[in-house]
Amino acid sequence: MINIGLIGYGYWGPNLARNIHQNPDLNLVTICDFAPDRLKIAARLYPQTKMVDNLDDFYQTSPLDAVAIATPVSAHYALAKQALQAGKHVWLEKPMTDNVDHARELVDLAQKASLTLLLDHTFVYTGAVRKIKALIDQGELGQLMYYDSTRVNLGLFQQDVDVIWDLAPHDIAILDYLMPVKKLAVSATGSSCLVNGMVAKSSLTIFMDQGVISHINTSWVSPVKIRQTLIGGTAKMVLYDDNQPSEKIKVYDKGVDVFETKEDLYRLNVQYRVGDMWAPKLDNVEALALETEHFVDCINHGTEPLTGGAAGLEVVKVLVASKESLAKRGAPVELK
Amino acid sequence: MINIGLIGYGYWGPNLARNIHQNPDLNLVTICDFAPDRLKIAARLYPQTKMVDNLDDFYQTSPLDAVAIATPVSAHYALAKQALQAGKHVWLEKPMTDNVDHARELVDLAQKASLTLLLDHTFVYTGAVRKIKALIDQGELGQLMYYDSTRVNLGLFQQDVDVIWDLAPHDIAILDYLMPVKKLAVSATGSSCLVNGMVAKSSLTIFMDQGVISHINTSWVSPVKIRQTLIGGTAKMVLYDDNQPSEKIKVYDKGVDVFETKEDLYRLNVQYRVGDMWAPKLDNVEALALETEHFVDCINHGTEPLTGGAAGLEVVKVLVASKESLAKRGAPVELK
Amino acid sequence: MINIGLIGYGYWGPNLARNIHQNPDLNLVTICDFAPDRLKIAARLYPQTKMVDNLDDFYQTSPLDAVAIATPVSAHYALAKQALQAGKHVWLEKPMTDNVDHARELVDLAQKASLTLLLDHTFVYTGAVRKIKALIDQGELGQLMYYDSTRVNLGLFQQDVDVIWDLAPHDIAILDYLMPVKKLAVSATGSSCLVNGMVAKSSLTIFMDQGVISHINTSWVSPVKIRQTLIGGTAKMVLYDDNQPSEKIKVYDKGVDVFETKEDLYRLNVQYRVGDMWAPKLDNVEALALETEHFVDCINHGTEPLTGGAAGLEVVKVLVASKESLAKRGAPVELK
Amino acid sequence: MINIGLIGYGYWGPNLARNIHQNPDLNLVTICDFAPDRLKIAARLYPQTKMVDNLDDFYQTSPLDAVAIATPVSAHYALAKQALQAGKHVWLEKPMTDNVDHARELVDLAQKASLTLLLDHTFVYTGAVRKIKALIDQGELGQLMYYDSTRVNLGLFQQDVDVIWDLAPHDIAILDYLMPVKKLAVSATGSSCLVNGMVAKSSLTIFMDQGVISHINTSWVSPVKIRQTLIGGTAKMVLYDDNQPSEKIKVYDKGVDVFETKEDLYRLNVQYRVGDMWAPKLDNVEALALETEHFVDCINHGTEPLTGGAAGLEVVKVLVASKESLAKRGAPVELK
Repeated sequence: MINIGLIGYGYWGPNLARNIHQNPDLNLVTICDFAPDRLKIAARLYPQTKMVDNLDDFYQTSPLDAVAIATPVSAHYALAKQALQAGKHVWLEKPMTDNVDHARELVDLAQKASLTLLLDHTFVYTGAVRKIKALIDQGELGQLMYYDSTRVNLGLFQQDVDVIWDLAPHDIAILDYLMPVKKLAVSATGSSCLVNGMVAKSSLTIFMDQGVISHINTSWVSPVKIRQTLIGGTAKMVLYDDNQPSEKIKVYDKGVDVFETKEDLYRLNVQYRVGDMWAPKLDNVEALALETEHFVDCINHGTEPLTGGAAGLEVVKVLVASKESLAKRGAPVELK
Repeated sequence: MINIGLIGYGYWGPNLARNIHQNPDLNLVTICDFAPDRLKIAARLYPQTKMVDNLDDFYQTSPLDAVAIATPVSAHYALAKQALQAGKHVWLEKPMTDNVDHARELVDLAQKASLTLLLDHTFVYTGAVRKIKALIDQGELGQLMYYDSTRVNLGLFQQDVDVIWDLAPHDIAILDYLMPVKKLAVSATGSSCLVNGMVAKSSLTIFMDQGVISHINTSWVSPVKIRQTLIGGTAKMVLYDDNQPSEKIKVYDKGVDVFETKEDLYRLNVQYRVGDMWAPKLDNVEALALETEHFVDCINHGTEPLTGGAAGLEVVKVLVASKESLAKRGAPVELK
Repeated sequence: MINIGLIGYGYWGPNLARNIHQNPDLNLVTICDFAPDRLKIAARLYPQTKMVDNLDDFYQTSPLDAVAIATPVSAHYALAKQALQAGKHVWLEKPMTDNVDHARELVDLAQKASLTLLLDHTFVYTGAVRKIKALIDQGELGQLMYYDSTRVNLGLFQQDVDVIWDLAPHDIAILDYLMPVKKLAVSATGSSCLVNGMVAKSSLTIFMDQGVISHINTSWVSPVKIRQTLIGGTAKMVLYDDNQPSEKIKVYDKGVDVFETKEDLYRLNVQYRVGDMWAPKLDNVEALALETEHFVDCINHGTEPLTGGAAGLEVVKVLVASKESLAKRGAPVELK
Repeated sequence: MINIGLIGYGYWGPNLARNIHQNPDLNLVTICDFAPDRLKIAARLYPQTKMVDNLDDFYQTSPLDAVAIATPVSAHYALAKQALQAGKHVWLEKPMTDNVDHARELVDLAQKASLTLLLDHTFVYTGAVRKIKALIDQGELGQLMYYDSTRVNLGLFQQDVDVIWDLAPHDIAILDYLMPVKKLAVSATGSSCLVNGMVAKSSLTIFMDQGVISHINTSWVSPVKIRQTLIGGTAKMVLYDDNQPSEKIKVYDKGVDVFETKEDLYRLNVQYRVGDMWAPKLDNVEALALETEHFVDCINHGTEPLTGGAAGLEVVKVLVASKESLAKRGAPVELK
């Protein structure tokens, strides 16, 4: 049994608490939040968990093996550092930090102390994304060409971060998991759309090795909610529509064949192939439940999480570079 | 009755011929194409039209008032210039030219000779786009915020131009018609996606005055055909889906209200409003038929076309700048 | 404060319990179920509610003002009768009874004792159905022509009732609420589709006064879940698709005009009109929460529920007649 | 080369003419129509075809091997009989006749004279229906359970026939082709929906052997056009949506397993299985072109058409019985 404490019971924290509570290998010992009304709500649901409103009490009242952190991003670094230095395994909300150096420092700390550091890249644990990963790993898609995602809706506007920091981390995390291809540089454009100063609509390009390219379109000012991702390979292509209640993934047996035709200049040297479409049955386990199990496994066996510090660092790198590119109206910023 | 000749009977020319033929004010005198098999097909459909395979014959065999040009873009400048210099009104395929100076020259030539120069920006004449224009002009959308279009499909790959030159002209022309807002600069990214060297997938941003922004996503390597445009105003927003057989336009009574809340730092100062959706009945007249009538009207009354040389020049400017930005991986290129 | 007890904590009971618990005017005093494991689950969620496994304890341990009954239909009559005779207001699951005489008896009992008898026709309390009702009452649809519903999915197969008894009560209750038109007769056909003897796929017609007709298509053997209802008037028509996350209701400004053309026998004397489509914003309050409030109101003010015993009786009449018609392969059965 | 004449150049005749014209083995010798303006239109498109306005001229002016008949149904019997008695092969519009005896007589006439009699059941020749047929023949669907079709739209109202006669022949013809299961009886209900006396909305059930059942829902008073057919087998089920531009057919790996569980009365003895969905690539050849080729083949080889007189007779039988059942508000009518 792993004793775990949770810091932050705001928007996302309740989901972590629920999944921790339901996992037989975790014991939700303490919840920490500065807002008394949030603690009250938590107390009603988890009468056996201790409720505290400060970090001193959090660490001193009970022996913890692990800490889950679900606060605004600006607090991630300090809280995660404190937890790791105290020898706790850490489950950290995304994005990891608002700063590449801080992200690197957390990765190092976890590694040196042989502690599990898991980033909450929830989508990676969905049946849909795991199925796409399996298809890619089996070579079904052929050589990867692109990742193209539209993730737009109306609101919720954030006051302190741009829409890229709010919505794109989902896609960057999925991309990082699916495509083991080096990311080279980013170009980002956007506008605040007359709203409150934060960029409310944005287009992000990630240039990757081997000619692979990613486009991620995010917006808080779309009248309709779209969650649509195209993943293209030379052999097959995938449409992943997270809004669909069923058939979230459609695999198209469509591809592009390139060949040379020097003799005949007028003939096209690219042909495309159109075949069947296939919508595989997906595993319906709640992603967060699976992620919780995975966290337990990683702690128990000392294995690296699917979404560990390295993945979190990749997301932060892209976000930081995109902020810089946004300010330069799309000028490319190299990723190091 | 206006005597008109058509140069180019390839992919799009037959549509022009058909609409010219059906218009009671136009007389399709001559068709010119270099390919004998194309002329043969045309001859069967239009037995009373002269078929010629060279420009000398085209201009000398019959007296023409106007010339329609439906050739590859590389030939547009020379052919349109020749026609204008010969005193003919010109109906020109898009994009106008592959070069800003050439486009400017054609605009000047037409203006000085008081000749009609109409660019075939067909979408501008559809019931859907005209309805959106009417909504904008009536102030229904409030202050304009953005234009966002996804125009992707599988193939047809072009051998000599990037996907932006192939697919984005539709959107740039629609944008130019709908939003009388100065375009300032562009940023474009893309990849050939392992295909034939031409950019096969691209993301184009147009920075506009007053914080307005346009994103145009084009691709030849998408497994599904998407023709989806979002047009956002502060009062209402439009979803224009050209794939829908009916209900192509949905007007969302959704908007964003911004206000200041200095007292309460924790309260959001942006709120969105959600109301009814409305799909107006659209005019079903074929766009090209309406455009043909408009060409006749402009010639007869000496009025400037909705899609005249100035509109054509705007499209060329954006395309040329996007090519430059593509080569610099998204670095912004100013529009002059 | 109204003291209420709940009998039956199986499939639907937990939803009643949750809504009763959340309503400030109701006090969930006792839950009765014969299955100890169901009571255990209930006890964890409602620690202040008494759990009993027999009716004697249910009625004797605490003073009740009202009883909610969520058991299989075969038990409805006896349980509701007992409750009404004990002077309790009753909230009864649908269908009311499996027998017209029993339904009539319950209506009489409630009426004579001036007790509230509310049938749980949940859909009547949804934002979608209430909006359609408002449109009809405002005369927007013109003269009513038909109600046509497709309610099909895969499973859940019932062992003791036909698919009509399982799925059609939703539609009959909606129809009864929306269209105050006398139902005259029914015709029903169906097949067990090789499954377990119960009719698994069925088509039900309700002949109504003034030429109005209702078709209700139900199935447990459809590969896709469809919840689609068309409601036709001479002036406008409604498409109600309960599967849509938003835009559940679309109002079509389409109608049919009939006129006489004696002079010209060859001219059509029916014309249809096509106009805009409109998707009104709907109220998102949970239907069951609204229904709970309504139950409280009816008790407090002695008013007749929207879905009272009379509505429940109408549903039972149609179901019983449809069973008879099914056995006669569609032969019409009069409703009295 | 087969010399063929066409009688009737109204709504559907032009499609026949076009396909006959394009087929290299057919020679469209003569077109007959009573309306001079229709003949004028035809003459412009087919300058080498003779245009006549009476049957005497039709038969006397040129030697015909075959006759295509595309007139209103009331004229089918007399015209087809005349053609067969004159020794011509016949291509006949559907429904075959308005009378079972007449249909039988035509079947006999053709058989005795060894002439090809092809019914224009066009849908049978589509890629979609042929693919479903292949799946059924390969046993992919398991044992057939049902055919369920919704074929509704707004207008076109017919003045002389009910909506069943107008729209259901498509489905009865498809059903007859797909399911070689004896049709036993029909039940039909409907209403004129306040329109012009003809039944404008209808539900038709066909009871078939082995417990198979068909439901066909037709309407002229639906605000939306629906062309949706479900075909259920015990192993797999098909959704055929003819409105979809691509993915017209979806094959669901879903089925129903029935087993006995005597020991445990509370356990369900029916379980359903949910697997992948698969949308096969379909042949895009125009159905009418394929049907035209098939007509030629049948004539040349003396083989029985896929949609011969027997299929036409089946459709007529169901239609005639449905009319009788309609008049008796759904009472079943046996098919003999």
